[in-house]
Amino acid sequence: MQMAFNELKEKLDEVEDLRMAAAVLSWDQATFMPPGGAEARGRQLATLSSLAQEKFIDPSVGKLIDKLVPYGESLDYDSFEASFLRKARLDYSKAINVPPSYVSKFNKHSTLSYQLWAKARPENDFKSLEDSLKITLDLSREYADFFPGYEHIADPLIDDSDPGMKASDIQKVFEELRKELVPLVQAISERDELDDGPIKQFFSEDAQLAFGQIVIEDFGYDFQRGRQDKTHHPFMTKFSLGDIRITTRVKENDLSEALFSTLHEAGHGMYEQGINPELEGTMLADGASSGIHESQSRTWENIVGRSLGFWEYYYPKLQKAFPEQLSSYSVRDFYRASNKVSRSLIRTDADEVTYNLHVMIRFALELELLEGSLEISDLPEAWHARYESDLGVRAPSDVDGVMQDVHWYAGTIGGSFQGYTLGNIMASQFYDAALEAHPNIPADIAQGHFEQLHSWLKENLYVHGVKFTPNELLNNITGGPLKIEAYIKYLKEKYEALYSI
Amino acid sequence: MQMAFNELKEKLDEVEDLRMAAAVLSWDQATFMPPGGAEARGRQLATLSSLAQEKFIDPSVGKLIDKLVPYGESLDYDSFEASFLRKARLDYSKAINVPPSYVSKFNKHSTLSYQLWAKARPENDFKSLEDSLKITLDLSREYADFFPGYEHIADPLIDDSDPGMKASDIQKVFEELRKELVPLVQAISERDELDDGPIKQFFSEDAQLAFGQIVIEDFGYDFQRGRQDKTHHPFMTKFSLGDIRITTRVKENDLSEALFSTLHEAGHGMYEQGINPELEGTMLADGASSGIHESQSRTWENIVGRSLGFWEYYYPKLQKAFPEQLSSYSVRDFYRASNKVSRSLIRTDADEVTYNLHVMIRFALELELLEGSLEISDLPEAWHARYESDLGVRAPSDVDGVMQDVHWYAGTIGGSFQGYTLGNIMASQFYDAALEAHPNIPADIAQGHFEQLHSWLKENLYVHGVKFTPNELLNNITGGPLKIEAYIKYLKEKYEALYSI
Repeated sequence: MQMAFNELKEKLDEVEDLRMAAAVLSWDQATFMPPGGAEARGRQLATLSSLAQEKFIDPSVGKLIDKLVPYGESLDYDSFEASFLRKARLDYSKAINVPPSYVSKFNKHSTLSYQLWAKARPENDFKSLEDSLKITLDLSREYADFFPGYEHIADPLIDDSDPGMKASDIQKVFEELRKELVPLVQAISERDELDDGPIKQFFSEDAQLAFGQIVIEDFGYDFQRGRQDKTHHPFMTKFSLGDIRITTRVKENDLSEALFSTLHEAGHGMYEQGINPELEGTMLADGASSGIHESQSRTWENIVGRSLGFWEYYYPKLQKAFPEQLSSYSVRDFYRASNKVSRSLIRTDADEVTYNLHVMIRFALELELLEGSLEISDLPEAWHARYESDLGVRAPSDVDGVMQDVHWYAGTIGGSFQGYTLGNIMASQFYDAALEAHPNIPADIAQGHFEQLHSWLKENLYVHGVKFTPNELLNNITGGPLKIEAYIKYLKEKYEALYSI
Repeated sequence: MQMAFNELKEKLDEVEDLRMAAAVLSWDQATFMPPGGAEARGRQLATLSSLAQEKFIDPSVGKLIDKLVPYGESLDYDSFEASFLRKARLDYSKAINVPPSYVSKFNKHSTLSYQLWAKARPENDFKSLEDSLKITLDLSREYADFFPGYEHIADPLIDDSDPGMKASDIQKVFEELRKELVPLVQAISERDELDDGPIKQFFSEDAQLAFGQIVIEDFGYDFQRGRQDKTHHPFMTKFSLGDIRITTRVKENDLSEALFSTLHEAGHGMYEQGINPELEGTMLADGASSGIHESQSRTWENIVGRSLGFWEYYYPKLQKAFPEQLSSYSVRDFYRASNKVSRSLIRTDADEVTYNLHVMIRFALELELLEGSLEISDLPEAWHARYESDLGVRAPSDVDGVMQDVHWYAGTIGGSFQGYTLGNIMASQFYDAALEAHPNIPADIAQGHFEQLHSWLKENLYVHGVKFTPNELLNNITGGPLKIEAYIKYLKEKYEALYSI
């Protein structure tokens, strides 16, 4: 059995090598690649990904997995071998349901669709995207139908990002959350606006980047096993457990852009840097789900990075870096500026409170599109209507409306957005569990010490990679399932104080 | 036939995609990769290169080539299809002679050998490398023996870098060259030394890099299809014809380091940027040989970049960039400083005249090692003896002696060095042909205009990629074979004037 296991591992590790190579090419494409490289790079990435797919769905892989299943089940559930076999079996059984002809059709269409979007968006031309978006919707439905027996047609798509989660569970949780958020946003809107003057000034790029790097190094992001570069849309990427990189973008007239995206991506990066080195090079060396991943980026960006304690320690340092801009503002001024709530149009710029409303709009529209109760041609108006009813704002055009996020134009409709809000919810659940173990974490943070929080998260969450499902992790770490209470408590305590509600 | 050709092309283009992906990973390894990434990167590169090899030597490729040979021979010699088939046939026939077990043994050994060298060199410990170097020598001999019927055991190794060249031909040319160089170096050594004071001052890194980039942009290196980054050992690399990158290194107390390595690598880069776009993505989109490649780096670095005319145009600009350091030196002072000849120890720092003596020492030692007339254990002393007799210097240790260049420690013994001097010789032959077509090129250069030279080189040489062998290119472009006359004339005219001989 050990020989068969090693044979399987060798085959799947080769697939991982190809995927990591593709990640290097994608990172380069988004950071340093000169314009002339674009065309060939697309082709090279397609070659790598079809090779990886071809090698993964090879029947010999399936035979080895079948042979090894009883062996895996005979071992401790959390052993490397048992976890590896569970993951291999799950991914393989999904992959063989999807015909190679679909994969290649899908890949070609997403590239084309992305290019169309990149062109149409600046021209505010949603019409020109309708046909392509219809194909995307058809392809998304076709994909779901490779997994018959689903409860909701979105379930197979959701399961790819957030394994074990279903549309009905998420709808329930989102509905509960909405009931709490809407009155909170309403109450905030009735108070005086916070002044974001302190962050809306000119801050030079180099000094912004330098400050962010100091903070994330203090967090525990390891620059010996990572680096930060500039890009258009910040992301984290992994080439191995020894090389986990982040990217950011800088606005010189808005301090929050680079700073909070840096803390956010560093959170993603620290999660993967914390994976047990024994999992290196295998399918298990990865984040557990899109929601779990987002829980960690949000922990470091928001729970830590937008807390008053954090700024009590860092604000004097920030003032030193930008004396002209900040000497007349107090730490409380700055804290308030960084947490200003407003009903706005753009998801990625939204504050902690309204952010989830943006996500829920998208999630609900995805379900309606997949169900067939909403047509692509009616989507722009449905978007505006939702924004008006849920956030009280209406985008002047589709640019900042339905064409705002890349997700639907570069992949599937369905499963793309729920992880953001699931992450926010889980972040508070995990953080509360950490506080229970170490009540002095907030005091630590106020002195620029993050070891206790970081170690606890590493030992309880990061280290496991994909050994466990999101639900298993929630149960093991918080003693229960997904629950919004901790998150609501966090939001209310913070924002009722900030807005004197 | 067209269908079979397309099938072959598709298979070989996939191999190229894998090679280009590996090139991206290697470039990243040498420029931006954090230390933690090293281990996995080695494994990923090995996976990509064995996959490329596996796909290339697949019997189905051989069958298609066999089937298509008559078709290729029926077409115009310089047509895309005929050239593609010649190149495919040649490379395939070489590759299938080498068993996969050898390739994997060789790859493992070279990685290990390189690591040993990187450790032993700073410790001046050649002894610790002897065993590994003996294996390298055995492996090099074993490789040569996969190609029986050679005239000299080095020939198969030389042929991999400089197709069509043989040890005996090279020895003959090198002997002729040596006869001219030794008295020239002797004559120079009897004159007063030139003063390299102007370039041996402090020059800030950023300003050095900025100046170099202006020059190579003027040359015609296209930053839309390339970029320059810093590294330890400068190189050029290609990911596609739209993405051809160069690297450099900077010494703040020596202006010549970054500047001339930039011009050198830009020469390599312009060569490949000039390849016909129709060859993109195929095996033909490459340089014709190590010597031909070096002829172009040397043309732009030396014939152009170390000429008096060039500096008449650029020196005022350089003075403007570094007024403190250079205002008291004239253009002639600077020209002399950039062309100082000295009998020195390090090949990569050597001037144009003595450089070839360094190369010839290595070439001769490689042949002796392969022939068995020199033992690895006697190599350090043989090195010193040659340097004393040919250059009149003796390295204080093996660090700057036999351990100075990476080549023997990271690959094969044999075929690694001749290209540098072949390149110098061919550079002058090609340049003379360009002058014959456009006698006013030197006047152009003295006004910072390079279009005429660049276009001529592109149309006559660069555009062809690997369609022709080096000997074919020499014949087609210069009307004859490899000849040292042009190069000797160039060196004598320049250095007899510089040293008032």
